[in-house]
Amino acid sequence: MLANRRTILIEWGDCDPAGIVYFPRYLEFGDGCTHALFERVGLPKPRMLETYGIAGIPVVDVHARFLLPSKFAETLTVESRITEWGRSSFTVSHRFLRDEELAVEIREKRVWTARAQDGSGRLESREVAAEVKEKFGALAAPAQSARK
Amino acid sequence: MLANRRTILIEWGDCDPAGIVYFPRYLEFGDGCTHALFERVGLPKPRMLETYGIAGIPVVDVHARFLLPSKFAETLTVESRITEWGRSSFTVSHRFLRDEELAVEIREKRVWTARAQDGSGRLESREVAAEVKEKFGALAAPAQSARK
Amino acid sequence: MLANRRTILIEWGDCDPAGIVYFPRYLEFGDGCTHALFERVGLPKPRMLETYGIAGIPVVDVHARFLLPSKFAETLTVESRITEWGRSSFTVSHRFLRDEELAVEIREKRVWTARAQDGSGRLESREVAAEVKEKFGALAAPAQSARK
Amino acid sequence: MLANRRTILIEWGDCDPAGIVYFPRYLEFGDGCTHALFERVGLPKPRMLETYGIAGIPVVDVHARFLLPSKFAETLTVESRITEWGRSSFTVSHRFLRDEELAVEIREKRVWTARAQDGSGRLESREVAAEVKEKFGALAAPAQSARK
Repeated sequence: MLANRRTILIEWGDCDPAGIVYFPRYLEFGDGCTHALFERVGLPKPRMLETYGIAGIPVVDVHARFLLPSKFAETLTVESRITEWGRSSFTVSHRFLRDEELAVEIREKRVWTARAQDGSGRLESREVAAEVKEKFGALAAPAQSARK
Repeated sequence: MLANRRTILIEWGDCDPAGIVYFPRYLEFGDGCTHALFERVGLPKPRMLETYGIAGIPVVDVHARFLLPSKFAETLTVESRITEWGRSSFTVSHRFLRDEELAVEIREKRVWTARAQDGSGRLESREVAAEVKEKFGALAAPAQSARK
Repeated sequence: MLANRRTILIEWGDCDPAGIVYFPRYLEFGDGCTHALFERVGLPKPRMLETYGIAGIPVVDVHARFLLPSKFAETLTVESRITEWGRSSFTVSHRFLRDEELAVEIREKRVWTARAQDGSGRLESREVAAEVKEKFGALAAPAQSARK
Repeated sequence: MLANRRTILIEWGDCDPAGIVYFPRYLEFGDGCTHALFERVGLPKPRMLETYGIAGIPVVDVHARFLLPSKFAETLTVESRITEWGRSSFTVSHRFLRDEELAVEIREKRVWTARAQDGSGRLESREVAAEVKEKFGALAAPAQSARK
């Protein structure tokens, strides 16, 4: 399964009075890594929203584990991949590594979401286009795409 | 000139490794206080955007002075008022007080902004409606409205 | 089990280009609600850190579900309670309600954490003092304290 | 005068419902660029705090001008330099460029700050060590160092 790697530098403003990363920041980092993952397959988010007429890919469920604290000026490497495809949803998994050790793990379940056509502006789920899944090798590699 | 007061509780996540508020947070607090000030005169931002067909009131210039550091769990009182009206811009001033002492001072210059009608989606300035200024007593009290 | 209620006003800066709350903000809101819950039983965090000689109560595992999107200027009510006590850890559950409907649900597992006494400054877990659990009625109501 | 360049990628979470960068984020970007500037002369902040026994270099005054809005997924280049040295304070100037056009300009006045030795933990200003100024060429290039 296609993965993307991104390097995160921990900034002063990411850290709390205990001197470690304030945990919601990791969720922000993960969100940026998801966008980088889509960009990696030729789908930078602005173009993706326009091409497929969607409003976004909001997170509906997120689970994060914080194994090692990180401090200001440290560098983390994040490996991101899509680990599950549903009809209108998918799961992105991020592994944050510090010197090869797993520091943080995040799993985001996201939904392919568009504005309702009834004029209400309401957000509703849509089926993910097959070509999007193909870009990640999801259809070409069914054995792997079923892996959680 | 009409003023609004708001109380801000400093949260753990607002503070940095030195144990004091990370300075960009004050700008976020000030932004919320500007919205509270407009709500005070009957213009909660969502209704204001809709009523006047504007996209927002973005800050084009901001000046902040940080006189006293504040820590987690402390409470600040913010006094906000519009201290200057231009044709399509205005200045909001915020004074952050801790136990009657001035801790932070912010001056935001904002512009009344709408989407261009040419389909480009470009943001452009618009004249502030007279009735908006009236709500703040700007026209009724010219002597004060000229005060910086 | 003792619960605390807090009202959250959604600010402009909490929302993303889709016009809804950017999901990591909910984790920040939940964090503030946890502090409010401890304050409710007489343990404002600064005093708690000092009294028990701890560095913090960092989150080691968090699970959040986002059921309804919320927009700028909306108000959410958050109900927070400790739903599980371990030896050195505990779980805080937050239910975000909008007009009585469940909008967001967060479960944070936190650890009672102090600096190691060996001079390394390393963070390590500690047993939660019995009197802290008692303040929440944990020992007085064993049937409930086992409830997830 | 020595300058440092840094590239900033605008993330989804940096933008507001108008689809443009929420202005306090620029102050966070500038803060990170100041750290990068010090790192450039061999003073990564953690080492700097330890070497000189300081608690930080808090901003006491900031002025920012926002000339062009930036959107999600755009890239800005930030040029940062120290434009003024005082006894215990200094000014860092950041120019944010988008395709060679000036988009944002920030001037941060910062103070070299340590904990008082009287046990109060109070933050107080200290004289900036001559060797720190020298690293930026401040003493070697007096004509430039006087330039605002």
